[in-house]
Amino acid sequence: MTTTCAAARPTLHRKFDEATAILAADAMQPLAFAVLAGIDGVAGDTRARLVKLVADACGSTGMTGGQSMDLGAEGRSLEAAELEHMFALKTGALIHASVMSACVLADPIPPGHATALDGFGRTIGLAFQVRDDLLDVEGKTEDIGKPAGSDERMNKATYPGLFGIEASRRRCDELLEEGLGHLEALPDAAALHWLARFIVDRGR
Amino acid sequence: MTTTCAAARPTLHRKFDEATAILAADAMQPLAFAVLAGIDGVAGDTRARLVKLVADACGSTGMTGGQSMDLGAEGRSLEAAELEHMFALKTGALIHASVMSACVLADPIPPGHATALDGFGRTIGLAFQVRDDLLDVEGKTEDIGKPAGSDERMNKATYPGLFGIEASRRRCDELLEEGLGHLEALPDAAALHWLARFIVDRGR
Repeated sequence: MTTTCAAARPTLHRKFDEATAILAADAMQPLAFAVLAGIDGVAGDTRARLVKLVADACGSTGMTGGQSMDLGAEGRSLEAAELEHMFALKTGALIHASVMSACVLADPIPPGHATALDGFGRTIGLAFQVRDDLLDVEGKTEDIGKPAGSDERMNKATYPGLFGIEASRRRCDELLEEGLGHLEALPDAAALHWLARFIVDRGR
Repeated sequence: MTTTCAAARPTLHRKFDEATAILAADAMQPLAFAVLAGIDGVAGDTRARLVKLVADACGSTGMTGGQSMDLGAEGRSLEAAELEHMFALKTGALIHASVMSACVLADPIPPGHATALDGFGRTIGLAFQVRDDLLDVEGKTEDIGKPAGSDERMNKATYPGLFGIEASRRRCDELLEEGLGHLEALPDAAALHWLARFIVDRGR
């Protein structure tokens, strides 16, 4: 499958400037929480749980924590476990939160289903980042929205950079299988199957 | 009254670097929403309302919108109404939201009290920013946490810069009187009286 990402546009700080990009983020982050807190027809307690779930995934225990590890790791070598922990925070946490939001909205659901979705969210979040690293090495600039090879030039800790392209592809397939395995506990998970394959196959 | 602000420390981007400062903000903003969404012993709907209130005050309709106007205004002259609108967003919105948070938590309260607090919050929020501009011109570096006169050097739109020190002092006193006037509708507002005077008198 060949997928062309919608992100074939320059990033905000290139198109405008850094101050504008930072302000745009500062405007959009609270907007996300305002939207979650104000969803029509959803109980207040559920809205508050959604805010907490997404906020935890954004902050020092999630994306920002991972980003901070990433900055700290520039120019030095990481173990696989350390790198995967960073990936789990950097992009994994938000993908996991997206999956778990559906659980919160659908609550009460059988505990077994919640556990399955939790495992699926974590695994696919990790697969996404390994795939993203691979795309940076293999991909064309127009598919990923930033110049191909930019991670390597920035001396970033990446899966292919540390373990090679072949090992990265194997890890990605392994994570996909693991993620799909979690879905077996669910009665109907065709959409999540599609999503998992989309994440791992994009750009191939 | 002479007040020494606690902020006699260098700002984060000076003490560390810009990337760290931006990440710290990216970690603390969601933390604030996680805290609001998870307050013990407060109904879910109330927590969601607090999140919405503060999120709206942070984003493009509040602080970030004001900051964006501020950047756009550098180097050009503003009318008083335009400047006060920018102030109302930039710092006023958060001070107003702090006051209104108490209303949300204390709800139901008499509508007259809510209106009074709304007016008080807006007026004192504006007074805070006019006072902050004055401190930048008059204040000593150790009182305000940034080099005195830095607004002028940055060519920022400020109240004293546009209308002079005397007019700024008068406007500040006027806003204080107006703010205290709103409190007359409330049965016991000694703490808010104190707070309003603290904001306007700090550094004097």
